Amino acid sequence: MRAVDLIRKKRDSGEHSREEIDFLVSSYTRGEIPDYQMAAWLMAVWIRGMSRSELAALTEVMLYSGEVLNLSDLPGNKVDKHSTGGVGDKTSLILAPIVAAGGLNVPMISGRGLGHTGGTLDKLESIPGFNVNLTLDQFRQVLRECGMGLIGQTAEIAPADRKLYALRDVTGTVESPYLICASIMSKKLAEGIDALVLDVKTGSGAFMKNEKDAAFLAELMVETGERMGKQVVALITDMDQPLGNMIGNSLEVVECVEILRGAGPQDLRELCLELAGWMLHLGGATKTVEEGKKRSATLLASGKALDRFRQMIELQGGDPRVIDDAKLLPQAQHTLQVTSAKAGYINSMQCEQIGTACVILGGGREKKEDSVDPSVGIILHKKVGDAVSVGEPIATIYYNAEPKAQRAKQLIESSCEITATAPSTRRPLIHRVIGAK
Amino acid sequence: MRAVDLIRKKRDSGEHSREEIDFLVSSYTRGEIPDYQMAAWLMAVWIRGMSRSELAALTEVMLYSGEVLNLSDLPGNKVDKHSTGGVGDKTSLILAPIVAAGGLNVPMISGRGLGHTGGTLDKLESIPGFNVNLTLDQFRQVLRECGMGLIGQTAEIAPADRKLYALRDVTGTVESPYLICASIMSKKLAEGIDALVLDVKTGSGAFMKNEKDAAFLAELMVETGERMGKQVVALITDMDQPLGNMIGNSLEVVECVEILRGAGPQDLRELCLELAGWMLHLGGATKTVEEGKKRSATLLASGKALDRFRQMIELQGGDPRVIDDAKLLPQAQHTLQVTSAKAGYINSMQCEQIGTACVILGGGREKKEDSVDPSVGIILHKKVGDAVSVGEPIATIYYNAEPKAQRAKQLIESSCEITATAPSTRRPLIHRVIGAK
Repeated sequence: MRAVDLIRKKRDSGEHSREEIDFLVSSYTRGEIPDYQMAAWLMAVWIRGMSRSELAALTEVMLYSGEVLNLSDLPGNKVDKHSTGGVGDKTSLILAPIVAAGGLNVPMISGRGLGHTGGTLDKLESIPGFNVNLTLDQFRQVLRECGMGLIGQTAEIAPADRKLYALRDVTGTVESPYLICASIMSKKLAEGIDALVLDVKTGSGAFMKNEKDAAFLAELMVETGERMGKQVVALITDMDQPLGNMIGNSLEVVECVEILRGAGPQDLRELCLELAGWMLHLGGATKTVEEGKKRSATLLASGKALDRFRQMIELQGGDPRVIDDAKLLPQAQHTLQVTSAKAGYINSMQCEQIGTACVILGGGREKKEDSVDPSVGIILHKKVGDAVSVGEPIATIYYNAEPKAQRAKQLIESSCEITATAPSTRRPLIHRVIGAK
Repeated sequence: MRAVDLIRKKRDSGEHSREEIDFLVSSYTRGEIPDYQMAAWLMAVWIRGMSRSELAALTEVMLYSGEVLNLSDLPGNKVDKHSTGGVGDKTSLILAPIVAAGGLNVPMISGRGLGHTGGTLDKLESIPGFNVNLTLDQFRQVLRECGMGLIGQTAEIAPADRKLYALRDVTGTVESPYLICASIMSKKLAEGIDALVLDVKTGSGAFMKNEKDAAFLAELMVETGERMGKQVVALITDMDQPLGNMIGNSLEVVECVEILRGAGPQDLRELCLELAGWMLHLGGATKTVEEGKKRSATLLASGKALDRFRQMIELQGGDPRVIDDAKLLPQAQHTLQVTSAKAGYINSMQCEQIGTACVILGGGREKKEDSVDPSVGIILHKKVGDAVSVGEPIATIYYNAEPKAQRAKQLIESSCEITATAPSTRRPLIHRVIGAK
């Protein structure tokens, strides 16, 4: 087999056999196929696409390029959730404690924020002492003790994906639903899970702005997971405005604790109950999704989910007192109000722009190498559909550098479209459910 | 400007500005853009294609990546011919002497054989002592003395093409009409010519098997040349069977001398008169193509073209006595007859297969690094339309290694389709003329 022949085959819209994909990806990961050949192949895949069986083969080869966790010694099924990313999207920190308290194991291997979206690892690291870099053995130990754990991708997990992603990043081949699917699924299935709930975002703050693209990616991921014998469901959920009210790493931890106390903003709570309901159901803890949602609400109300969160923080080296005293989290030095220049209703928010405002404050990263300031962020006082009067605060900016705050303020102001009448229709929070029939 | 943004633009079927193409190609040639980014861009170009103005920009940037010969001190216009390659395609060795004898300059920078097709440089090197590796200064000197010269691509000519071609070769991006056009035209225009005649082959022995693809490439090359202020015409000519009767380096030199003596096979002579007629006409030596053809026939009959060939061989260090004594050319040790197993008519020949038979004998190269045996080859005794009886010779194989001869014999046998009746239609030698209206 020669790489150049396989490149030509994909270029001409041919379909690869499992052996051909194995040859390409395994040889590349071992350094036996050069970057330039893989780059040409990735571009051909980006443009020509893949069949479902090619995609399953690619995912499986990437998955088995590294270690697949064997958690069979843990009692109870293993479930996880993956989100394609958004602004204020902090559900992982809430879902893992709920579902662990519900009797399942949640071995979450998460990512960092990039571009306008936040990342779970950055949020957790705003908790003083919290260690996301556990070894796989330490991770197992945390899981055994509290049923959940949250770490970053280790060198043992899907090395083919790490190498391919770095190449895609510099060759314009990131945004392919096929390559995105294989990348996500290979990493998630390496967690040794039985079931997976996918939260595929759509709207102005999502990577996939339109629902059709989001649904297509969701279908690919569901089918790929099912072909590998897993229970998979995808929820297409709204990201046309930030989720919840708080954006920024420390602030999002604070909002998660609010939800875990049974309070917090309605949209975030509703989405968490929906996702947790599916996780409990697919993991076999409840007979129906509805029952799963009810169980989740109970676990919030009883404080059991919050207890689990506290325990996990402690096991991963963090200071659990942040739960009762938010002042122990990194605090920004200053605040700045964003007020409305006119009266009316918030008709829409350019969600990506608000995410970018947080990045500008220092709360996210434009390049992988950038460091993140955990203390900065934005609290929204208004969401889409809310009435505003002249001079009324729309948002509060938490900042450490004045010029950055001014730029963020302009972005937030211009992101809000204010109209004389309230918007006639509301976008649903859950657009569609794909899979798990 | 960032390479990754330009890759994404072409991936999404966007059109590059002249500055963008200059940035990509110049930076790549200087080593400032890595192979993997260029490979992704080349694949995007292969699949998405290019506009005519993008193609003109690409050709020009590649052309000016190196030296463009300034031959303005030579009296008379400068013309050249380029063929897309075929089997037994030896016209350069005939055209250059005719056109030089006709009063124009022919500064030919030629290539080597690759795959089933032969190359001008390999043919010339079968002449003992012949040096195709002249410096540009030596080349000028030869041109000044005899009006023609035949050398290989030097390091100074279109270095961007050399680097890009090496990358295309290993990334499945060779066979793009746009990239082929830019590669050919950038090298040919570096010769500092006023006019160019393109011989674009079509048929079973050509790279473009069907006429539509050949015509498309021809149109691209004609338009690109015209945009750069040159007189350009393309002839779509037949390569469904070998051109002439002899295939192999020494043998082809012998056949060229036959034509230059006013003899030789009809198809080869006809094509040479046609191409030379166009070269003389576009170069301004004759008012019409018809007049150019007649002048060419006269230059063959008078021996003036042959004299020019003899002079050029001497100036480039070769032994001109080969013209009168073919035994001074490298001779194969053995011959083997290929005879017909049945009676009837040659209905068709798989031309590429006959080219491959010559490569197997050692007369061509499968990989660039292979060396070539100048002595081996094939003489065809029958062409398409000819009657054959049982046991009658179809071809003679000239060989040095018995097992190779046997494999070549099988290939030649299976390449000939013999039917009871003569083929009802004949493919024309000249399919179409494109450009030079």
